[in-house]
Amino acid sequence: MSEARAERLAALVAEEGLDALIVGDLVNPGDSGPDAIANVRWLTGFAGTSGLAIVGPERREFLTDFRYAELAERRVGDAFERVIFDGPVFEELGRRLRGRVGFDPAATSVRNHRKLAAAVGDDVELVAAEGLVERLRRVKDADEVDAIAAASRLADEALEWLLERGIAGKTERRIAFELETRMRELGAQPSFPTIVASGPNGALPHAIPTDREVGPNELVTIDWGAKLDGYCSDGTRTFATGELDEELRSAYELVLRAQLAGVDAVAAGAHGREVDAVSRGIIEEAGMGERFGHGLGHGVGLQVHEPPRLSKRSEDTLEPGNVVTVEPGVYVPGRFGIRIEDLVVVTAGEPKNLSGLPKELRVVS
Amino acid sequence: MSEARAERLAALVAEEGLDALIVGDLVNPGDSGPDAIANVRWLTGFAGTSGLAIVGPERREFLTDFRYAELAERRVGDAFERVIFDGPVFEELGRRLRGRVGFDPAATSVRNHRKLAAAVGDDVELVAAEGLVERLRRVKDADEVDAIAAASRLADEALEWLLERGIAGKTERRIAFELETRMRELGAQPSFPTIVASGPNGALPHAIPTDREVGPNELVTIDWGAKLDGYCSDGTRTFATGELDEELRSAYELVLRAQLAGVDAVAAGAHGREVDAVSRGIIEEAGMGERFGHGLGHGVGLQVHEPPRLSKRSEDTLEPGNVVTVEPGVYVPGRFGIRIEDLVVVTAGEPKNLSGLPKELRVVS
Repeated sequence: MSEARAERLAALVAEEGLDALIVGDLVNPGDSGPDAIANVRWLTGFAGTSGLAIVGPERREFLTDFRYAELAERRVGDAFERVIFDGPVFEELGRRLRGRVGFDPAATSVRNHRKLAAAVGDDVELVAAEGLVERLRRVKDADEVDAIAAASRLADEALEWLLERGIAGKTERRIAFELETRMRELGAQPSFPTIVASGPNGALPHAIPTDREVGPNELVTIDWGAKLDGYCSDGTRTFATGELDEELRSAYELVLRAQLAGVDAVAAGAHGREVDAVSRGIIEEAGMGERFGHGLGHGVGLQVHEPPRLSKRSEDTLEPGNVVTVEPGVYVPGRFGIRIEDLVVVTAGEPKNLSGLPKELRVVS
Repeated sequence: MSEARAERLAALVAEEGLDALIVGDLVNPGDSGPDAIANVRWLTGFAGTSGLAIVGPERREFLTDFRYAELAERRVGDAFERVIFDGPVFEELGRRLRGRVGFDPAATSVRNHRKLAAAVGDDVELVAAEGLVERLRRVKDADEVDAIAAASRLADEALEWLLERGIAGKTERRIAFELETRMRELGAQPSFPTIVASGPNGALPHAIPTDREVGPNELVTIDWGAKLDGYCSDGTRTFATGELDEELRSAYELVLRAQLAGVDAVAAGAHGREVDAVSRGIIEEAGMGERFGHGLGHGVGLQVHEPPRLSKRSEDTLEPGNVVTVEPGVYVPGRFGIRIEDLVVVTAGEPKNLSGLPKELRVVS
């Protein structure tokens, strides 16, 4: 698997007129966070906090430090020449690099760029080459789609468990804790901090769970995801805790119509801004356009937010193998919020929805 | 509080000959992780994922986007002019900056440095100014020491709870899960992924918990910490699950002696490498120097790893208000590992140990 991915990357590297590309985190190279390692993980299988790859037409090298020698052997195998370096990583890179070498300017700090430039010396021309691996990561292969689907199923299972135990009378914070703990118990991590936003808090799209107790006859939005074997899921449901007044019910129906139409619009060849416009148009027609202040969706994979984007300003066109969220919302400050989000695979034909939970307004206690 | 901190930072900014300093994450400015926001949090109290400050002799500005307007009002208050910007952050910075402006090259990507340079135009000279806030953050005030102590107490309480329930026969992964869940239940987060390393796994200082079941008559190292109100704790204990052979017992006594001596050596004016040498010397004298392959300790605060360092290569001198770990270890590959770690406050007099758990070899079942 990693051989084939490296092959495709090497072709891109050659296309860009580079002799080699450095792949990995050059902001905190010895202590990288989960997002910063996504490219290396995709390319090599290695998921430690210290790993860099060098890929060129004829070269496949993987560098890590002594802490990860064993993990590298297990995960990277022989697809790359494995180098266990001792000492500063930039000196190791300096010894290895020649010619035109690409680095990702979004993943390199100014400090480390200086260190790298000093280490490689005059033989090397450092060339900013942004997002080459991300370009390949947009299109998921069958194993990746399976991994995302498995994360999504686990997340759905955890939510069902939560709903069976009940949410009314609990604080938002407690609900988030129980849901995250359940995902951990099932063997996953939350793919991002769970949002539980009840009543008026629902109007904040990025609400942090508070000590507010979920009351009766209100809306509760839960936005949650699991990360399993490195791959993320992302979904949102808004529930009612009893009878709702007409305004809330019709707002819910509006968001649901917009969401269903958005999912149907997910197709190979569709532009990100077209798909956004389908859902947005329905909400605008109802006079609620101002209440939907964010983009319709984003790609999901090793990172919970990655290209392509579905939004007013998206430059992306969908391709088979993209996995994107479709998550319209309506937020009325001080009163309530509604968001419904599915995870959808772009195929050559019908979109494939990975989210298994019903979307009709559901009353939970 | 934030007024006084901003005052001290402004003095440093003036000392460096700068008109202003940009504080915050310029790698992922709209989507910053917990470590990347530590400087802004310390300076302003704001802990959202999108916040930047501009500090100069006469200016205190705080910039965030619409998502965080309310949080900024609550946390930042009037100590800073609050700016809710709409659109690209670099354009907003460009409109505001004049003269010699410092940025942190370790917290700025090459891409964003280019965007910033383009936005500020020729009126502004961008000057690399690394670690100014970190320099101030080394010395904790009384509230910060209290916050770290509270995190440490919570972590100790969670560990005691775990030990009462027992660890023998459970997998390392299960033990880590229970301990982390307990910390969450008590209102904190783990300050880093918990290490549970049993038997031969103990020889890997950065072991990831595995599915190995903890057996009888072996050593188990647990390295864990809580994060409460932004402040971290960090501690390690090694336990026995029954009778140990003489080699293990004497190795434990050796590490304990080294640890006690290291704690005693933590004093204002002591150099980081001197304190390291005190513990290391004891382990070397016993012929185990090669088995202690890492530094003795590191600062702890809003980040679990921050300056000052206690190590062979440290350039730091301890000052009252530093909070550091003292964590010698002995690791015998394929056989066992031992590490004992406390969190210690440097004072003008005796060091103050924040770790409340006993350190004599303890048998747990």
